[in-house]
Amino acid sequence: MAKKLNIAIIGYGGMGSWHVNLLMKMKEIKLCGIWDIDPIRREEASLKGIFVYSSQQELLEDHNVEAVTIATPNDSHLPISLAVMKAGKHVICEKPVALNSDEVLQMIQCSKEMGVLFTVHQNRRWDEDFLIIKQLYEQQTMGKVFHIESRVHGSRGIPSDWRNQKQHGGGMVLDWGVHLLDQMMRMLGNKKPLSVFAQLTHVTNEAVDDGFRAYFQFEEDLTFFVEVGTSNFISLPRWYIQGENGSAVVHDWNKNGEIVMVSDWEKRDAVPVVTAAGLTKTMAPRTDETVKKYPLPEVTADIQDFYRNIFSCVHEGAQPLIRQEEVLEVMYIMEAIFQSAKENRVVYINERIEK
Amino acid sequence: MAKKLNIAIIGYGGMGSWHVNLLMKMKEIKLCGIWDIDPIRREEASLKGIFVYSSQQELLEDHNVEAVTIATPNDSHLPISLAVMKAGKHVICEKPVALNSDEVLQMIQCSKEMGVLFTVHQNRRWDEDFLIIKQLYEQQTMGKVFHIESRVHGSRGIPSDWRNQKQHGGGMVLDWGVHLLDQMMRMLGNKKPLSVFAQLTHVTNEAVDDGFRAYFQFEEDLTFFVEVGTSNFISLPRWYIQGENGSAVVHDWNKNGEIVMVSDWEKRDAVPVVTAAGLTKTMAPRTDETVKKYPLPEVTADIQDFYRNIFSCVHEGAQPLIRQEEVLEVMYIMEAIFQSAKENRVVYINERIEK
Repeated sequence: MAKKLNIAIIGYGGMGSWHVNLLMKMKEIKLCGIWDIDPIRREEASLKGIFVYSSQQELLEDHNVEAVTIATPNDSHLPISLAVMKAGKHVICEKPVALNSDEVLQMIQCSKEMGVLFTVHQNRRWDEDFLIIKQLYEQQTMGKVFHIESRVHGSRGIPSDWRNQKQHGGGMVLDWGVHLLDQMMRMLGNKKPLSVFAQLTHVTNEAVDDGFRAYFQFEEDLTFFVEVGTSNFISLPRWYIQGENGSAVVHDWNKNGEIVMVSDWEKRDAVPVVTAAGLTKTMAPRTDETVKKYPLPEVTADIQDFYRNIFSCVHEGAQPLIRQEEVLEVMYIMEAIFQSAKENRVVYINERIEK
Repeated sequence: MAKKLNIAIIGYGGMGSWHVNLLMKMKEIKLCGIWDIDPIRREEASLKGIFVYSSQQELLEDHNVEAVTIATPNDSHLPISLAVMKAGKHVICEKPVALNSDEVLQMIQCSKEMGVLFTVHQNRRWDEDFLIIKQLYEQQTMGKVFHIESRVHGSRGIPSDWRNQKQHGGGMVLDWGVHLLDQMMRMLGNKKPLSVFAQLTHVTNEAVDDGFRAYFQFEEDLTFFVEVGTSNFISLPRWYIQGENGSAVVHDWNKNGEIVMVSDWEKRDAVPVVTAAGLTKTMAPRTDETVKKYPLPEVTADIQDFYRNIFSCVHEGAQPLIRQEEVLEVMYIMEAIFQSAKENRVVYINERIEK
């Protein structure tokens, strides 16, 4: 029988049960069991035939458990991660990994001291809409890219659980921002973010931000816009990317969208657009013979690769796909967003990283 | 025969000929003639049966001329406006009225000294797409408005005439920004703009900005985004507005769009959206029974009202619809945009107005 990686899960809420379902499908993984502080959730797991530990301590003392996935509210990631690592077990922590960079540094320090893996479930690196835009950027399909917009719009306000409480690490910067910012940093690879200006929204909620907008300046005149909104009854596109020779859009999670590229720069025979109050040549739409439309590239991803990598890290000496310094950098960027919004000023990213 | 307002036009390019066509349709106006420094354009006007003065001086000395419309490149607005006013005639100047606020102040001062009208052709106050959003904002159709986005996207780069030369007052902030910013200020009425963060683009042109993005903070937590782009091969919507109970979009000059409003706040039975890498309840689209769609309101405008107001100002003591202090304020805002982009910082609007 092939060797498996033995994993237990702490926290059996929305994401905890998502992890259980995923792991039970994977031949590389053995799910040892779960622990949740809520007896109702323990009962739910038990009814599904999942082994339920009698306490977190019992889980930590189970010598069969090699790694623990932590899917609890954000403010408990630090103490639980430290407890798991001090028990000599590897940690896969849900995102956002912590409430601030000091906590992340403590977690990283502990993983070094204990010689265990400490990584984060940045699952949206496997989102296919993201991978499409990443490919267009990297392959320069529309020429050199100078601007990218990444938006997630919903209209349900902020969830009514711990996610709307500040002390539990609620708010959309930490909840969804961490995904979009992690994607941004992975897409841009070696380009450094220079500065950010951010605005938070409090439409449905005073305690935490129920959305935000962040405008980044990167090296080489590249700008990147990140927005999360929860009071958007009409959704603007998930992705919008501009290269020197064309633009592309991904409208939604279903990857609807297109690429429009110039086919004849010289043809500038604009027919002026007549509006109620005047006319414009500059803003006249291009005629069909000067642009060409293309479908978005086909991209597929398998989220099981996340756990396959964990298996390889533990048993084959591989490096984790989600690296600690990447997680820390995104946390610094989120702190820069909070600071920018609070002080209504442009924050230079290095101000934070080097402080 | 009813009294008419006698108008001459200086500059017979794109907008000059637009003014001629408009004025020749209006019963309240008599077009006395035109002047242009370019003999080819004078010839074009003459062929259309329009009287052409032999010089700007001859036009200024024509005692029949009561008012002059100036439709020349932006850097000539100041000297020509001053010359016209000093000849005792009223001035209708094309936009942007000048290259900076010092020039505007000189123009205003001259109009006071000479006791003549000095106003600006902010024709896009009559754009029906703008008036639709203004109505939704004022009537609070979707509840209290907290965010508005005003975008104009083209893909033809910057025009290849004087508009791509800095010394002639080229660039998109001055060309299109002046319209969008004037609309913003007219829409928000008594709300004061507090600060702005802006980015300029130079995709097709180094000499002048070929687009810009400006993020405004107004009183009472209202944010307003203004963007002009000339390398956008896919256009994002012309207008996007968010109220506490719904959102509205105007896609284009043809006023296509819709309003989507919540009909049942309580129904939060979100069906999670499954994406390639995970699921989300927060961002799940609303079900049909919790939102309702409405058409945009019908709005009509008549650009002839601009010149009818000029007639009333000259002959009936009316006040101009486009007031000097409004024009000056928009110029200060454009200067704040330039300063913000240059220094990569948030600029407080009063910094400029009170300097």
